[in-house]
Amino acid sequence: MDTQELYERGLALRRQMLGREAVDRRMRALGDFGRPLQEIINAYAYGEVWSRAALPLATKSLVMVGMLAAAGKPAELRIHLKGAIANGCSREELQDVLLLVALYCGLPAANEAHNAAVELFGDAAKDGDK
Amino acid sequence: MDTQELYERGLALRRQMLGREAVDRRMRALGDFGRPLQEIINAYAYGEVWSRAALPLATKSLVMVGMLAAAGKPAELRIHLKGAIANGCSREELQDVLLLVALYCGLPAANEAHNAAVELFGDAAKDGDK
Amino acid sequence: MDTQELYERGLALRRQMLGREAVDRRMRALGDFGRPLQEIINAYAYGEVWSRAALPLATKSLVMVGMLAAAGKPAELRIHLKGAIANGCSREELQDVLLLVALYCGLPAANEAHNAAVELFGDAAKDGDK
Amino acid sequence: MDTQELYERGLALRRQMLGREAVDRRMRALGDFGRPLQEIINAYAYGEVWSRAALPLATKSLVMVGMLAAAGKPAELRIHLKGAIANGCSREELQDVLLLVALYCGLPAANEAHNAAVELFGDAAKDGDK
Amino acid sequence: MDTQELYERGLALRRQMLGREAVDRRMRALGDFGRPLQEIINAYAYGEVWSRAALPLATKSLVMVGMLAAAGKPAELRIHLKGAIANGCSREELQDVLLLVALYCGLPAANEAHNAAVELFGDAAKDGDK
Amino acid sequence: MDTQELYERGLALRRQMLGREAVDRRMRALGDFGRPLQEIINAYAYGEVWSRAALPLATKSLVMVGMLAAAGKPAELRIHLKGAIANGCSREELQDVLLLVALYCGLPAANEAHNAAVELFGDAAKDGDK
Repeated sequence: MDTQELYERGLALRRQMLGREAVDRRMRALGDFGRPLQEIINAYAYGEVWSRAALPLATKSLVMVGMLAAAGKPAELRIHLKGAIANGCSREELQDVLLLVALYCGLPAANEAHNAAVELFGDAAKDGDK
Repeated sequence: MDTQELYERGLALRRQMLGREAVDRRMRALGDFGRPLQEIINAYAYGEVWSRAALPLATKSLVMVGMLAAAGKPAELRIHLKGAIANGCSREELQDVLLLVALYCGLPAANEAHNAAVELFGDAAKDGDK
Repeated sequence: MDTQELYERGLALRRQMLGREAVDRRMRALGDFGRPLQEIINAYAYGEVWSRAALPLATKSLVMVGMLAAAGKPAELRIHLKGAIANGCSREELQDVLLLVALYCGLPAANEAHNAAVELFGDAAKDGDK
Repeated sequence: MDTQELYERGLALRRQMLGREAVDRRMRALGDFGRPLQEIINAYAYGEVWSRAALPLATKSLVMVGMLAAAGKPAELRIHLKGAIANGCSREELQDVLLLVALYCGLPAANEAHNAAVELFGDAAKDGDK
Repeated sequence: MDTQELYERGLALRRQMLGREAVDRRMRALGDFGRPLQEIINAYAYGEVWSRAALPLATKSLVMVGMLAAAGKPAELRIHLKGAIANGCSREELQDVLLLVALYCGLPAANEAHNAAVELFGDAAKDGDK
Repeated sequence: MDTQELYERGLALRRQMLGREAVDRRMRALGDFGRPLQEIINAYAYGEVWSRAALPLATKSLVMVGMLAAAGKPAELRIHLKGAIANGCSREELQDVLLLVALYCGLPAANEAHNAAVELFGDAAKDGDK
């Protein structure tokens, strides 16, 4: 497959999950310096790995949330919590994942992840007021 | 709820997922020194968190595999890959998770996790010969 | 033991170490979503593990500071540095721990931990001016 | 060798790489509590390890950038990205290192490191406008 | 560019650095399950990132050694220490990198990395006896 | 202070804690390549940081055990569990530390650390049979 096709397919999926505006803002923010990284993200992460068929996107999102909490990456976690909601995960499902984090990655990782989730749900509630 | 009830419920689920013999051998291996840890594992990890209802056991197992690969804990990963198979996850589903590991946790984490999975599948194949 | 008793005993110890107001604010901030996590923290972390008798609270606090610096969790570290002072640890004792961090976890971990400690001591000095 | 000589040699190299003002501000910020840590940094990190002769400073800086991105220490990474530029590393060289980070440490680590680099280059561009 | 071309270019470079036999053995060991991972490694890691031109292979190898020691991945480190020697790095250069590891990632990481290096040099000495 | 004096003082303390034979074997194993690392360990780790006076050696050992379990370094943890026993820590005290590890670093870290401890106590029991 041509890397350009992977890139287009991946970018479309990424925008669907994380929002066109947020993705485009992110890509502009990194400028020329970030172009090769964005190619890896669009073509390989979204165009290949996220596009695989064995698991639904919602399940992949739950795995991502667990992985990013385990790895201690709260900024990336916030992005993929949004993606999880866009992919149809419920709060109860996310809660079950974050409690596995508490037991298997420790309380500080679970606190970080809960903060990210509660902040996101709060933003969603405010948006709902508009 | 009484902690003893949580312990019994958790131990039953743990044995169902990981095998009665393997669980009992593990508990004996740690002896008296390990008893308080085993209480946490049985009562809180299995009796509470794994027993929550929002996600099926198979989905929790996929999350566990991602988390343990992200955290760099290959011995624990091996145990939960077995649990994933007992909970009904297919190889294709596990493969999709391990490819997310490659992109989001890096190639060394993905190599470790692939080694654990291939070793386990090899053991399963040998057992099938009997 | 009943989990409710563990919860009450743990919450009392947690408030004694970290301040009633700070603990209650934290519990409210996470809302319903955070309730199961707060149960783990109160019942199991404080009600069981912190309540064990072999080590004085001050020694446990010094271990916590080393662990959280090693794990790269500066927000949680700040909370447990306060707990360490409430449990009677001196600055000289904390300094000895943070220098072990420098040698065994590396200079970036030691810098993070020193920043947290110096910020906390500065806040304490300002409070003393009142 | 006397530790005082190591300290002086190290402090001179550290100021050359990171700027006299930035280094002195950092040392003052940590006060008495931070003095033993600053002695380790000046005498052993800069006076001994950075002063070794087998590799040029620019190559050591590239290694540092990879190590700090791998370890998830973005604040320290920002300092050593500045040091890398002072030691003569080009943007293209730093980009190659950060793409190794993407593949071998995962996309979240690469995102953190790209943010730090792009922020630094932006500051440099603004300084150039003066 | 076609992903197949990237794959071929990457595989050639990977074999040059790590030895044809070792690479082919590794690819066979992971079988069908590991094929998608091997495609990422060959096409993206070696075909793209290692093939970039701003830094010589030897410098990339030194960065890799620092990164893998920082990330606590001793099995992968052993592979890339071999690659570093194939790419022309001297023992003195590797020693300088591993001493940066000692100061910035802590003594346990430096011990792990020294063990891997000394083991590798010992194997090289034995091979030289033949 | 002269670095040679620090080295001698540190080596004496290290041998007292970890056993003369084990320390000397370790230093020989790393040969010329490991000499600069051993100088850091003897002069700075043991000659300076472990020699500080604010905390007893036993308390420092408990902190080390927590830190090394948190950092996921089981080989180094085994060494410092031996040191902890030489410094007078009891099994009950070590158990309390490892249960903090379970809650704050997660069950896989606690399992690794319990394995190391139980193995060590087993060896001690066998030595006692002689």
